[in-house]
Amino acid sequence: MKPYAEMSREELQQELAELKKEYQKYQHLELHLDMSRGKPCREQLDLSMGMMDALYSGADLTCEDGTDCRNYGVLDGIHEAKVLLGDMMENHPDNIIIYGNSSLNIMYDTVARAMTHGIMGGVPWCKQDKIRFLCPVPGYDRHFAITEYFGIDMIPVPMSPTGPDMDLVEKLVSEDETIKGIWCTPKYSNPQGYSYSNETVRRFARLKPAAKDFRIFWDNAYGIHHLYDVNQDYLIEILAECKRAGNPDLVYKFASTSKITFPGSGIAALATSENNLVDIKKQLKIQTIGHDKVNQLRHVRFFGDICGMVEHMRKHADIIRPKFEAVEEIFDKNLSGLEIGTWTKPNGGYFISFDALPGCAKEIVANAQKAGVKLTGAGATWPYGKDPQDSNIRIAPTYPPLEDLKIAAELFTLCVRIVSIKKILKEKSAEA
Amino acid sequence: MKPYAEMSREELQQELAELKKEYQKYQHLELHLDMSRGKPCREQLDLSMGMMDALYSGADLTCEDGTDCRNYGVLDGIHEAKVLLGDMMENHPDNIIIYGNSSLNIMYDTVARAMTHGIMGGVPWCKQDKIRFLCPVPGYDRHFAITEYFGIDMIPVPMSPTGPDMDLVEKLVSEDETIKGIWCTPKYSNPQGYSYSNETVRRFARLKPAAKDFRIFWDNAYGIHHLYDVNQDYLIEILAECKRAGNPDLVYKFASTSKITFPGSGIAALATSENNLVDIKKQLKIQTIGHDKVNQLRHVRFFGDICGMVEHMRKHADIIRPKFEAVEEIFDKNLSGLEIGTWTKPNGGYFISFDALPGCAKEIVANAQKAGVKLTGAGATWPYGKDPQDSNIRIAPTYPPLEDLKIAAELFTLCVRIVSIKKILKEKSAEA
Repeated sequence: MKPYAEMSREELQQELAELKKEYQKYQHLELHLDMSRGKPCREQLDLSMGMMDALYSGADLTCEDGTDCRNYGVLDGIHEAKVLLGDMMENHPDNIIIYGNSSLNIMYDTVARAMTHGIMGGVPWCKQDKIRFLCPVPGYDRHFAITEYFGIDMIPVPMSPTGPDMDLVEKLVSEDETIKGIWCTPKYSNPQGYSYSNETVRRFARLKPAAKDFRIFWDNAYGIHHLYDVNQDYLIEILAECKRAGNPDLVYKFASTSKITFPGSGIAALATSENNLVDIKKQLKIQTIGHDKVNQLRHVRFFGDICGMVEHMRKHADIIRPKFEAVEEIFDKNLSGLEIGTWTKPNGGYFISFDALPGCAKEIVANAQKAGVKLTGAGATWPYGKDPQDSNIRIAPTYPPLEDLKIAAELFTLCVRIVSIKKILKEKSAEA
Repeated sequence: MKPYAEMSREELQQELAELKKEYQKYQHLELHLDMSRGKPCREQLDLSMGMMDALYSGADLTCEDGTDCRNYGVLDGIHEAKVLLGDMMENHPDNIIIYGNSSLNIMYDTVARAMTHGIMGGVPWCKQDKIRFLCPVPGYDRHFAITEYFGIDMIPVPMSPTGPDMDLVEKLVSEDETIKGIWCTPKYSNPQGYSYSNETVRRFARLKPAAKDFRIFWDNAYGIHHLYDVNQDYLIEILAECKRAGNPDLVYKFASTSKITFPGSGIAALATSENNLVDIKKQLKIQTIGHDKVNQLRHVRFFGDICGMVEHMRKHADIIRPKFEAVEEIFDKNLSGLEIGTWTKPNGGYFISFDALPGCAKEIVANAQKAGVKLTGAGATWPYGKDPQDSNIRIAPTYPPLEDLKIAAELFTLCVRIVSIKKILKEKSAEA
């Protein structure tokens, strides 16, 4: 097919009429498909059912160091869980705190603590005039929701396949001491599936922030979430790199087993420098006596060690890889050459990012919704839900069954074509 | 024995010499006993091992409403867990949010939210000049630690067997709009084991706070933690009473299964009015996608319903009742008539409260520690760890094995006698 922009008005109108007929067929199917959130599917969850047998009534719930996991205590997590998640995060167990079931909750609490108590003796953010965060875009809506909730100004920074625009990041961070943080999903980023290049990570580790209480919020949500055995992205470990660069306290790094075992019933962790850990534990010991050690032990007993976890992730990949490939195949088949959109082809993570022609995203999502396919709201990938180009759409292929997903992807491309033609026709009218 | 104060100096000196010899015997035992925290003992934890079998690899982890507990979602908890904890807390399931593993964490988050975002549209506490809390004393050190951490001024209010001094509470709360809260453990209070009388609860429900953003922090930690089948304390349900009094939004009520199943691996809940729930959920949805539903389901499947839970609590009581009675017996035997201390005899909860002669608590605790028995630090039951009388000591009888506990209680009374005699002798010298 030739690009839509090069077609005549008549050609476009004929194409539009055919596409609309097809769209009506989908409407008659009364679909109820959900591609809106990065949720594992049932088959993925089934992979972890063995974890329910890892502890049983006859089991000894004692840690290697003699701690009875069933009782109070151990503020920062049992040692064997720190080893397992340390291996997963590529950090030393001593740099890790194991929390509850949600890394998002850790991030929220981290911002909340900075608001009321500052960072390492600094002025509490709520007592400072203005607080700003850099937000690589497109990015993760739940990150942006936290900073918005606390009244923190968000400054978008463009993403590229190698990571955020580091020239801009360096400039802003070094000049403006109201900038206190940046949200990063450095590996298989949400939503593009990009992984930061070596240079990007090195430049992050060497930032010279104007604000002493600036921290990188490094959400390594997809650290071992590869789709392929061979084509795996590699990310330089940020804590070690910061240490080498003489910036040891620059980063808070987050991860969880939410998309490894059960979302909402996994374990989450923070890795950071010793100075930051001391600072954080002053607060943590007030907030809780300790997190769920039984669930920590359950994870350790189920996986044994990181090898067990890596093997487990292969099984996840086997289930979701065909879904990513199906979406990409349908996008290729239906959109290639039309020049009405671009999309990413990640090696891991949970999302594909689609960029429509400017001004089309909202309408595409609305049209898909009308035909029974729920997508992440257009704009969600931008701070305040406002995509200035109205272009980016996040595709989440993991949750629907493969056959449903194919239907949803077909419908999605149909909506993209219809909305794009309408836009081009409108432009041609304006020109005429 | 006659009261020490009525003994002559010679009698006291002779008694002291004998007691010191006895104390030395204990020192030779090289004890390592811990009566410092309200921790269940191993036999209590064993009662819940069946919960580890409640879910297994072949089990269906689907809720009654079709929710797959293994996946993301359900911000405020699964319905069947709300029913179970609702029955436990005597509240309607619709008034409940199920959280993670710790009610202390809910209380912390509740104060933190009020600091940064205020309560129901009120000015955030961190933007108000001065924030004060009332603290019934003696009370729970971890409550006081939260308010201290947030820089909230704490005002002690005396406890009595019927609850806090309500004349004082009513006066302060109605006159001073900087007073925003009061910490209550209304049933089997920490540390005295007192339960608020009907009149006390009714007066709480009818408070007319000067501050619109005043809330009662009602930590119903020991709601079903009776020691006896017959002698059970009864507490008027505060939410219903507040509603009847036209004060529906006055209370946040907290509870957990920490001392029912496994401390740190249980489930915790908040019960409050619909208005408060709406306010709280605005924040909660930013903080997390949801809490651990698998653990919620595990608790529901293990207990079945509230009858199962009540039956389970009888087994706890059978284990810890002899411990409370042993302590009381030894206190009676060794201290009765000496007029050097008073102690409570609770029908439930986790503590016995001991009041020594003024100025003696710190030394008693230090002496016990020197002989290998760890007690809760003297002063811990007061805000800022400062007991102005240096009199109150919290006794936690549940954790040590019965035989150890008896030794510890004997030693404790010995320390009380030694320190009291020294004090009385000093006073007699001063008089002479």
